Amino acid sequence: MVARTVDLRSDTVTKPTAAMRAAMANAEVADDVLDYDPSALRLETEMAKVTGKEAALFVPSGTMGNLISVLVHCNIRGSEVILGSNSHIHIYENGGISTIGGVHPRTVKNNDDGTMDVDLIEAAIRDPRGEIVYPTTRLICLENTQANCGGRCLSAEYTDEVGELAKKHGLKLHIDGARIFNASIALGVPVHRLLQAADSVSVCLSKGLGAPVGSVIVGSKSFIARARILRKTLGGGMRQVGILCAAALVALRENVPKLEDDHKKAKMLAEGLNQIKGLRLNAAAVETNIIFFKVLEGAKLTAEKLCKNLEQHGILVMQESPTSIRVVIHHQISESDVQYTLSCFKQALTGVKEENGN
Amino acid sequence: MVARTVDLRSDTVTKPTAAMRAAMANAEVADDVLDYDPSALRLETEMAKVTGKEAALFVPSGTMGNLISVLVHCNIRGSEVILGSNSHIHIYENGGISTIGGVHPRTVKNNDDGTMDVDLIEAAIRDPRGEIVYPTTRLICLENTQANCGGRCLSAEYTDEVGELAKKHGLKLHIDGARIFNASIALGVPVHRLLQAADSVSVCLSKGLGAPVGSVIVGSKSFIARARILRKTLGGGMRQVGILCAAALVALRENVPKLEDDHKKAKMLAEGLNQIKGLRLNAAAVETNIIFFKVLEGAKLTAEKLCKNLEQHGILVMQESPTSIRVVIHHQISESDVQYTLSCFKQALTGVKEENGN
Amino acid sequence: MVARTVDLRSDTVTKPTAAMRAAMANAEVADDVLDYDPSALRLETEMAKVTGKEAALFVPSGTMGNLISVLVHCNIRGSEVILGSNSHIHIYENGGISTIGGVHPRTVKNNDDGTMDVDLIEAAIRDPRGEIVYPTTRLICLENTQANCGGRCLSAEYTDEVGELAKKHGLKLHIDGARIFNASIALGVPVHRLLQAADSVSVCLSKGLGAPVGSVIVGSKSFIARARILRKTLGGGMRQVGILCAAALVALRENVPKLEDDHKKAKMLAEGLNQIKGLRLNAAAVETNIIFFKVLEGAKLTAEKLCKNLEQHGILVMQESPTSIRVVIHHQISESDVQYTLSCFKQALTGVKEENGN
Amino acid sequence: MVARTVDLRSDTVTKPTAAMRAAMANAEVADDVLDYDPSALRLETEMAKVTGKEAALFVPSGTMGNLISVLVHCNIRGSEVILGSNSHIHIYENGGISTIGGVHPRTVKNNDDGTMDVDLIEAAIRDPRGEIVYPTTRLICLENTQANCGGRCLSAEYTDEVGELAKKHGLKLHIDGARIFNASIALGVPVHRLLQAADSVSVCLSKGLGAPVGSVIVGSKSFIARARILRKTLGGGMRQVGILCAAALVALRENVPKLEDDHKKAKMLAEGLNQIKGLRLNAAAVETNIIFFKVLEGAKLTAEKLCKNLEQHGILVMQESPTSIRVVIHHQISESDVQYTLSCFKQALTGVKEENGN
Repeated sequence: MVARTVDLRSDTVTKPTAAMRAAMANAEVADDVLDYDPSALRLETEMAKVTGKEAALFVPSGTMGNLISVLVHCNIRGSEVILGSNSHIHIYENGGISTIGGVHPRTVKNNDDGTMDVDLIEAAIRDPRGEIVYPTTRLICLENTQANCGGRCLSAEYTDEVGELAKKHGLKLHIDGARIFNASIALGVPVHRLLQAADSVSVCLSKGLGAPVGSVIVGSKSFIARARILRKTLGGGMRQVGILCAAALVALRENVPKLEDDHKKAKMLAEGLNQIKGLRLNAAAVETNIIFFKVLEGAKLTAEKLCKNLEQHGILVMQESPTSIRVVIHHQISESDVQYTLSCFKQALTGVKEENGN
Repeated sequence: MVARTVDLRSDTVTKPTAAMRAAMANAEVADDVLDYDPSALRLETEMAKVTGKEAALFVPSGTMGNLISVLVHCNIRGSEVILGSNSHIHIYENGGISTIGGVHPRTVKNNDDGTMDVDLIEAAIRDPRGEIVYPTTRLICLENTQANCGGRCLSAEYTDEVGELAKKHGLKLHIDGARIFNASIALGVPVHRLLQAADSVSVCLSKGLGAPVGSVIVGSKSFIARARILRKTLGGGMRQVGILCAAALVALRENVPKLEDDHKKAKMLAEGLNQIKGLRLNAAAVETNIIFFKVLEGAKLTAEKLCKNLEQHGILVMQESPTSIRVVIHHQISESDVQYTLSCFKQALTGVKEENGN
Repeated sequence: MVARTVDLRSDTVTKPTAAMRAAMANAEVADDVLDYDPSALRLETEMAKVTGKEAALFVPSGTMGNLISVLVHCNIRGSEVILGSNSHIHIYENGGISTIGGVHPRTVKNNDDGTMDVDLIEAAIRDPRGEIVYPTTRLICLENTQANCGGRCLSAEYTDEVGELAKKHGLKLHIDGARIFNASIALGVPVHRLLQAADSVSVCLSKGLGAPVGSVIVGSKSFIARARILRKTLGGGMRQVGILCAAALVALRENVPKLEDDHKKAKMLAEGLNQIKGLRLNAAAVETNIIFFKVLEGAKLTAEKLCKNLEQHGILVMQESPTSIRVVIHHQISESDVQYTLSCFKQALTGVKEENGN
Repeated sequence: MVARTVDLRSDTVTKPTAAMRAAMANAEVADDVLDYDPSALRLETEMAKVTGKEAALFVPSGTMGNLISVLVHCNIRGSEVILGSNSHIHIYENGGISTIGGVHPRTVKNNDDGTMDVDLIEAAIRDPRGEIVYPTTRLICLENTQANCGGRCLSAEYTDEVGELAKKHGLKLHIDGARIFNASIALGVPVHRLLQAADSVSVCLSKGLGAPVGSVIVGSKSFIARARILRKTLGGGMRQVGILCAAALVALRENVPKLEDDHKKAKMLAEGLNQIKGLRLNAAAVETNIIFFKVLEGAKLTAEKLCKNLEQHGILVMQESPTSIRVVIHHQISESDVQYTLSCFKQALTGVKEENGN
């Protein structure tokens, strides 16, 4: 029997707070497909302001936010997008940009810090003179924080540089900013500054921010106008959607200030894990709320068995590969949860049960 | 200044009731993408039962419900679907089955009563021996009630006949049952009986049922398993979606019994409109909550001017063509609203202001 | 044993003439993908001139010609094309515009004479104000001659009228002119006049013209530039393609003058068939080289058995449906072949063997 | 004025020989769409035999051959293909598998020798348990010879190993064998042995083999049956196509034995280029008929200027990047052409004009 559950699989697992529930119960709503839902409008206006863009649109998920963004920029048949080999869009979104959108992806290797070398990006841009055999490059995608590289942050300067490159070649820049607030807090740079070079951004409300559902995409008015049509085509137009937007507005107010704590707890957990025999990670590289670590060959348990062992103690983590595991911190993970987690890891891998672990 | 608003544009404009708001505030939820949300499961289980199918899946909209269903049945490149020339999927869903799904539509003329002649459906099925030049027919779609034909109901017998035809040719049958509860109430036939021949159905929660957001698709377990993946691909996977499902469960309980009243009010409105000089409609054909009518050539106002005039009195209707208008009744339209609406129509088209109209 | 073969299934079955074979043996050629093949250029220049368009492109088939044309005009995701319910593109091209191109078709009923009512075309054009639920109409397609309506010709005046409508709504007009030379000869109107209103045309070289392979599409320079890229994408770019183009140039010179004879022979055959008990056709409607006829219910043989019976005498025809048959005349069908064909039909359906039939 | 032209841009630039022209002039042909063209059948039968597969299909180009093959194996929506980062399909075919076929590509780095590390291929295969976020891997593509890696050959053993991996995971293996005859000759291994593990292969007739037009795809009977339909859909079905196939049959007989000479000449050219100051290449890596080399930074001319200089002497080469050039040998390049080419390179880069160079 599990006495306690610590769900570290993702920051999407948070439950709505009392304030969010109250906001949903009292939300002013209307048909957002026929007209505009007032609570949706309020959230969209707020997100446009925070991100420094002209307009915004609520969508049911980050996957739809990215899909719509790529498809709007690549609305002409024969388009290619350049994106990271380790990016969420390329790895975890069902290949939808191709299988649904007919867009051809060209990947550039993600470095450990989440960046792609700018000269490699430039080399991947198709020469328009070769159009008889090449697709047309129309878009570059970045991801900030870059989840699969351990939640690493892209600096404003790096993003600007890629933005300059995009402009030079007449391309658009989309940022998958699912966790852009984490990047902003970690870097101490306002969100709008980090996104300055972007033509469009997808921001998740249900990850670090802890809203129950949804993402917002932001960009120019004409981008959002086309995004609204595509949202309807994909089936993402929702009627009295203000219910969800009201919760998201609370999340924005309540939880952004808590992200700094999330990062501290992640650091604490990373440093603790690093001292456990059989695990290896680069604690210095844990900049935000995501930790990836290796289970070494000589460890007492394989990654798979370790995960099962932890599950028996209520600790849920995500096995990423036969030898690696991911854990993610969110605002409903306490310092005590972190200590408990560390004690369970130690016990599993060393056999020693700690007193304070429970 | 508008003293009163009567929104007859669609049955999607309803506001959540107090009970729905309470249900949302108290909903038990979890991450429906990583695992299953308990409130979503409850709704899905209930809908599977009501519709007589093995399994169910909550989706953000009826458009996504239909899109997923068509794409699951037509998952092989080169598929063709047979559907009504006046069907919602063909006319009002952005052509998404082709523009997103690459499925080729073959239309058969919808009769005034919403049916398609069964022999015309059969004639439209491609001969597999001609596969060198023909796409492969894989699916027939019906719509019940058939909105664009004035909310007409398809009988269980008709649906069975089409189902037999589908089986005979190895095809699937999908029913766009956005308003299947209206059909059930109007015909006095249980929902599951009307859907008996269907391999999949999309049922709307936010139309007659009055839930704030969403639809449910139902079918076999394997159909729903594939639908779940496609929902994620399209971006319709939502995290703590139980919030919305909890409201929908209340809607199901609260509003199905009210549909009969909706139909009575629609009949009342239809008969009233029919007596107004300059309008023409077949009141006998108003079986559910939708009314289409013509604005005759000699009428005092054109359809467009009539709509504007009504808007000044708070009456919102949907102009469908230069000479036709659609109105839809839902549970938040009262008998008094119907009377007020009729008096505004009369005043606009005859110049006579009625006493009891306010 | 079959003493004689008369292949009336299609005008695509012709064999290259001695002059075509000589032209192929001596054709000047080069790599048409890397540069331009000189014989291809010659054919393309000639076809552009004959059709009155700026530029032209050789493609492997009429299907590819139509597919490229539709896809170039509908190069933006979310496009809809209006075309005849009985058009070759809709019925006989595998649904490729949707299954390969993601374009949504909207059909308008073809009249018996191959036209679509212009007001029905206009009614099918989507109102851009409804873009939140509608795809975007971008193209109208006509077919001249309209094969499936019995090879009927569209007049220059009708085509102009549809062209005006297209312009008025900002749409493009594509003509599937697979047999436009037949229409030109039958109407006594130059090809370029019949195509004046068209933004693009696909002309078949291997039907009435009798070339071994290929079609040519014509249009503006920018249309052809984009078509060339799409031809490569689809795999229709061929290296020393001048071989085929040299034959087509001969076909153009040799066979256009023979089309009038084809039409006379078709008329003769139609009138003969019409006098055979058990068959029904409208001989007056046979304007070019295609004849459709019904096998009546009381006939001695069903359509299927009739076809098999004829095959035993070396007469090949195309069964179109359980009760209808198509025959097509081309330059390698002689008057004697027509007489022989008629005698075989008579014998099959009346049992009387004619003397002169062999 | 150019006295002499040596076209080294590609082996697609060859002109048909007298024997090919005679074969085309005398080819027995028929409508290959309605029935089967006898010369096409002969070629297809021969190619099936040579490659050790059940069946074969002539297609207009290698691009269509690869496109059809990928699409047949990935005929279900949501498919992913694993292929080389430097493969022809990924780089030079307009991204058609995505933009036309909706297939998502996953690239694995090509090593200098054209291989991909087998463990990297295995790591790229999607875990079916993750289907909620992953596309489904269905196909691995190899290319032999691997053009963009300098025409390197894949051994039978390597191909078998990848084939084993594919089988283990239930995947198909397609080989882009555009130059498989070059690989066979270079390795001294029969073509059918090199292709033993493949489910499908695309073989080019107009590259090293010198036919004017076309490729052949080979595979199982059911693969080819589906390929035939897709060929029609794409517009690659051609009528009296036997004209081209007759030439290809001659090419097969005439030119395969000449490939060894092509490789010798390529080696000679490579070794000569290697001794020219300002160029760098690995002559030992020139296994077949393709040579890539660098123009060094200190060279007298940049790659671009070098190409222009050579063009003035009738030498045509392909600039691949700002610092690299590709040359390709074919059966119409003589030893004297090679000597002339080398003398022109030397003169351009050293200023010394050789006597024997003209």
